[in-house]
Amino acid sequence: MPTLIIGNKNYSSWSLRPWLVLRHLGLEFEEVRLSLGSPDFHTELKRYSQAGRVPVFQDDLGSIWDSLAICEFLAERHPLLWPDEPYQRAMARAYVCEMHSGFAALRAELPMNCRAQQRRVEPSQAALADIARIEQIWQQCIEHHAEEGPWLFGRFGIIDAFFAPVAIRFNGYQLGLAHNSHEYIKLHLSNPLLQEWIAAGQAESEVILREEVGA
Amino acid sequence: MPTLIIGNKNYSSWSLRPWLVLRHLGLEFEEVRLSLGSPDFHTELKRYSQAGRVPVFQDDLGSIWDSLAICEFLAERHPLLWPDEPYQRAMARAYVCEMHSGFAALRAELPMNCRAQQRRVEPSQAALADIARIEQIWQQCIEHHAEEGPWLFGRFGIIDAFFAPVAIRFNGYQLGLAHNSHEYIKLHLSNPLLQEWIAAGQAESEVILREEVGA
Ligand SMILES: N[C@@H](CCC(=O)N[C@@H](CS)C(=O)NCC(=O)O)C(=O)O
Ligand SMILES: N[C@@H](CCC(=O)N[C@@H](CS)C(=O)NCC(=O)O)C(=O)O
Repeated sequence: MPTLIIGNKNYSSWSLRPWLVLRHLGLEFEEVRLSLGSPDFHTELKRYSQAGRVPVFQDDLGSIWDSLAICEFLAERHPLLWPDEPYQRAMARAYVCEMHSGFAALRAELPMNCRAQQRRVEPSQAALADIARIEQIWQQCIEHHAEEGPWLFGRFGIIDAFFAPVAIRFNGYQLGLAHNSHEYIKLHLSNPLLQEWIAAGQAESEVILREEVGA
Repeated sequence: MPTLIIGNKNYSSWSLRPWLVLRHLGLEFEEVRLSLGSPDFHTELKRYSQAGRVPVFQDDLGSIWDSLAICEFLAERHPLLWPDEPYQRAMARAYVCEMHSGFAALRAELPMNCRAQQRRVEPSQAALADIARIEQIWQQCIEHHAEEGPWLFGRFGIIDAFFAPVAIRFNGYQLGLAHNSHEYIKLHLSNPLLQEWIAAGQAESEVILREEVGA
């Protein structure tokens, strides 16, 4: 059976992305949860990957580390995960790549935390710029694809899985977002698969103090 | 004619990646060079992309920002850019994704600089760990694919374009690398296309002081 090695559901935003794609596809897989920041994390992880990070996906072919590489691997077998039209697909990839390589200030200052609800924070200029760019991306995508469905490119895809942790972040802190952003966050939070992840994260016992911002 | 919007050749490591892939494919394209850090950089860039970063690729379909999204777009039309076998392709993508999202210490402390030659630096523990991981990646790939050719997965591909700026970095600073790493760096530095980029970078007049490390 394929296996997905993940971090704590409460905190591990990168793990959530391929988990959501796998569940969206209805694929069966085993979960191995390693506790981020625990003394054994890196020792246990070495059994699956030398890159030192979760998530890692394993099946009989071998193991694939990195959230985006896992999603691309799945998309080769399940093409509906990217838009059909080549240029739309390129745009979706460019947005996903922005998320994959950027938004460092947002990631550092507003960690994903499934337990957080409208906590007070004072984002830096850099984090505010990240938030503004993400709102712009959502706005543009939703306007362009409204007739095809409610997700960023109409139907649910890798790009939505990449922004799911951002929906949790934006819900966790008081940020004064645009109406459209709230609608897209609500769409994510009403997804039963994401609800299942969030509930599991909230039920975890580990607390990583560094990630408890604005509490 | 397609256009690639790039930063300074001397410093812009992200711009180099798709440039090298386009030239490797022998495709004709126009270059628009914007000067990183100049007062007009962001104003001029806005004409091509709202993401605020180079590289950007434009053809009659529209524009694609982000180095990896551009390479994936090209790979859909030129499949030799990734390994043929699905799991090998997934591994190549995972290595590329590590580069795309990680190695922050290496990037901050040892900026790509085509003019640098064996400069003295004292990398932090984090940068040393980045260097060790990259040497491990190179070593593993080269061992596995030695019979297929000298590049990381045998023939030249996106993964080599992603590590080309690292070859320039590793050549620019004194780092005490393994023999195999030197061989792979030499392979890059003997590529006429990379030589052309480096010569153009060296001939540029702009100096960005922040990137002049160990001079
Ligand atoms: N580029 C990687 C990033 C993965 C990542 O940073 N994972 C974090 C947890 S969300 C991690 O494993 N951190 C452990 C560590 O850095 O020690 C991906 O997309 O999968
Ligand atoms: N994830 C992007 C990163 C691009 C990037 O950071 N480009 C730098 C130059 S190498 C840039 O445009 N910097 C301008 C700025 O940040 O103001 C990619 O892979 O294309």
